[in-house]
Amino acid sequence: MSLPADAAASGHWGPPYLLYLGNPADELAIKTARGVAYWRPEWCVGQYRHPDCKTTLGLPDMGMAEARAHGADTMLIGTANAGGTMAAEIVADAIAALDAGLNVAAGLHQKLRSHPDIVAAARRNGRALFDARDPAPGIPVGNGRPRAGRRLLTVGTDCSVGKMYTTLALERAMRRRGCAADFRATGQTGIFIANAGAPVDAVVADFISGAVEWISPARDDGGWDLIEGQGSLFHPSYAGVSLGLLHGAQPDALVLCHEPTRRHVRGLPGYPIPDPKACLEANLAAARLTNPAVRAVGVALNTSGMPEAEAVALCRRIGDELGLPCEDPVRMGVESIVDKLLACFAN
Amino acid sequence: MSLPADAAASGHWGPPYLLYLGNPADELAIKTARGVAYWRPEWCVGQYRHPDCKTTLGLPDMGMAEARAHGADTMLIGTANAGGTMAAEIVADAIAALDAGLNVAAGLHQKLRSHPDIVAAARRNGRALFDARDPAPGIPVGNGRPRAGRRLLTVGTDCSVGKMYTTLALERAMRRRGCAADFRATGQTGIFIANAGAPVDAVVADFISGAVEWISPARDDGGWDLIEGQGSLFHPSYAGVSLGLLHGAQPDALVLCHEPTRRHVRGLPGYPIPDPKACLEANLAAARLTNPAVRAVGVALNTSGMPEAEAVALCRRIGDELGLPCEDPVRMGVESIVDKLLACFAN
Repeated sequence: MSLPADAAASGHWGPPYLLYLGNPADELAIKTARGVAYWRPEWCVGQYRHPDCKTTLGLPDMGMAEARAHGADTMLIGTANAGGTMAAEIVADAIAALDAGLNVAAGLHQKLRSHPDIVAAARRNGRALFDARDPAPGIPVGNGRPRAGRRLLTVGTDCSVGKMYTTLALERAMRRRGCAADFRATGQTGIFIANAGAPVDAVVADFISGAVEWISPARDDGGWDLIEGQGSLFHPSYAGVSLGLLHGAQPDALVLCHEPTRRHVRGLPGYPIPDPKACLEANLAAARLTNPAVRAVGVALNTSGMPEAEAVALCRRIGDELGLPCEDPVRMGVESIVDKLLACFAN
Repeated sequence: MSLPADAAASGHWGPPYLLYLGNPADELAIKTARGVAYWRPEWCVGQYRHPDCKTTLGLPDMGMAEARAHGADTMLIGTANAGGTMAAEIVADAIAALDAGLNVAAGLHQKLRSHPDIVAAARRNGRALFDARDPAPGIPVGNGRPRAGRRLLTVGTDCSVGKMYTTLALERAMRRRGCAADFRATGQTGIFIANAGAPVDAVVADFISGAVEWISPARDDGGWDLIEGQGSLFHPSYAGVSLGLLHGAQPDALVLCHEPTRRHVRGLPGYPIPDPKACLEANLAAARLTNPAVRAVGVALNTSGMPEAEAVALCRRIGDELGLPCEDPVRMGVESIVDKLLACFAN
């Protein structure tokens, strides 16, 4: 699967990466860079920081030419400003990276290719620009036709409850057991981690399910596509994206992700977090449209906000209630969920 | 509510319309023009046809300058080619219309403003271009906050089952009874008919529910917003759009639209038409997220494919089964649905 073509040159981009931090406002601003450094350390040559930068990914600090000399292909601007705009210093640094021979990729709302000076620098150096929020041209409308291969989708009681992390943890655990399993990215951080994927929340509305069919095509090697979920059927701002994703995925298996300390869905105090069981049942009911045999295989809790003993007890209680393995992927791993998945689909 | 700004000039566009037919391939190709002529005859000065055009809307034939002299403001290109592309003759005719002093509006996938010669003609003449499939800039993400006013939404067992027609028939019937009621358009034909609205299937996926909130803002005159539905929760290509629309509408009332002779959803032989009762219940369940008090008030059948006696019997049977008034808006009107609506929301 190829990534969207760049706007300025016909070249490709990809790892090895120089991760750009610049001078971020806070930890949240480098969420994307941190995700890539955590999940793909082998792709990360170094980090680029301004002298006054107060955070680190623990990677070697490098200048752009130095990173190029160390084999970096692309500088990845993994920071996010409020509003997704591009500060003047980021523009200047992107141009400097292009002049140093690196390609440049970013996940900002404001596109690299919308800035004439960045486009000119890419042309001048024959380098590629990649905006992760720009869907590839030619994504088709979903067709709903059953396709070969097995697919798992993470769904959630809310946005930002650990769906990407859980999906990547499943990929890692399954590969360790020798299973063919591939993470399929649907958001900007996931796209950088996979070096492939489609930003399903940024496609034109008629193409949501088509984008998911496109990133997880038929496969016949007996392996699994592990598809990163987005949003929640119970989030009134984004449920359309979640439903299109569910239909396009034609999932054989669902894993429910949940953050038990949250009281209302992200950004909307009037909307309480749904009950996990009701949420899972609603997802199963909707998923049956394109895969009547869909089953739930586990629950992933983000328990970072609670003490260990309480987290263990809560996993046990929710797991019992739903009749499924329930773990915190960070604290406990996902082995019992993989056990359940492989047992359910042994043949 | 204002329409999206045009791309080439700062002027406004709107009725009176000259309806452009050109030389259409078939009746389906002039569906949009026919919808506007049927629902807004008072806005239509005339039709523009090529000499070999084999169809008519029954309007006076006019040249562009003649239409301008008769008070036309905008030439509406209401034709659709396979693929939504713009034939060379349409480009030439759009330029001629601009040179004759008309604004030009179109609902093609290929945008007027993407054609340099059309843009140049608009600039030269100080005329406006409007692409109905181009969402307005600045549509916000949906916020789900309860808002004042009453809203009805048409939902369907499939695409193209009469949701726009039913919504407009309800507007007409309610206005005849002296009720304040306003059609809110969500698709290209509806946008031309309302001279307002947003193409919800063409917005970026994260903004579906926000677009619907934007076209049906709070109102405190006791009147109704009648919102045109799109797609179906049971169409695997487009259900994401339908769910976002349902959440953004916060409907007080739903009317289910159904075409009883259809065997499978549009374009997908593998997907049977859902049972009307199950479809209505799924829509009510999903709608409760943003309006827990939602109720169904009627069923609209498109019975054009069956004899009169059979149509009447079927309306009675489905109406009894669902406990709701059931009519074919074309054959029978929508009076019993309006009766039910007004009785349900008398206070």
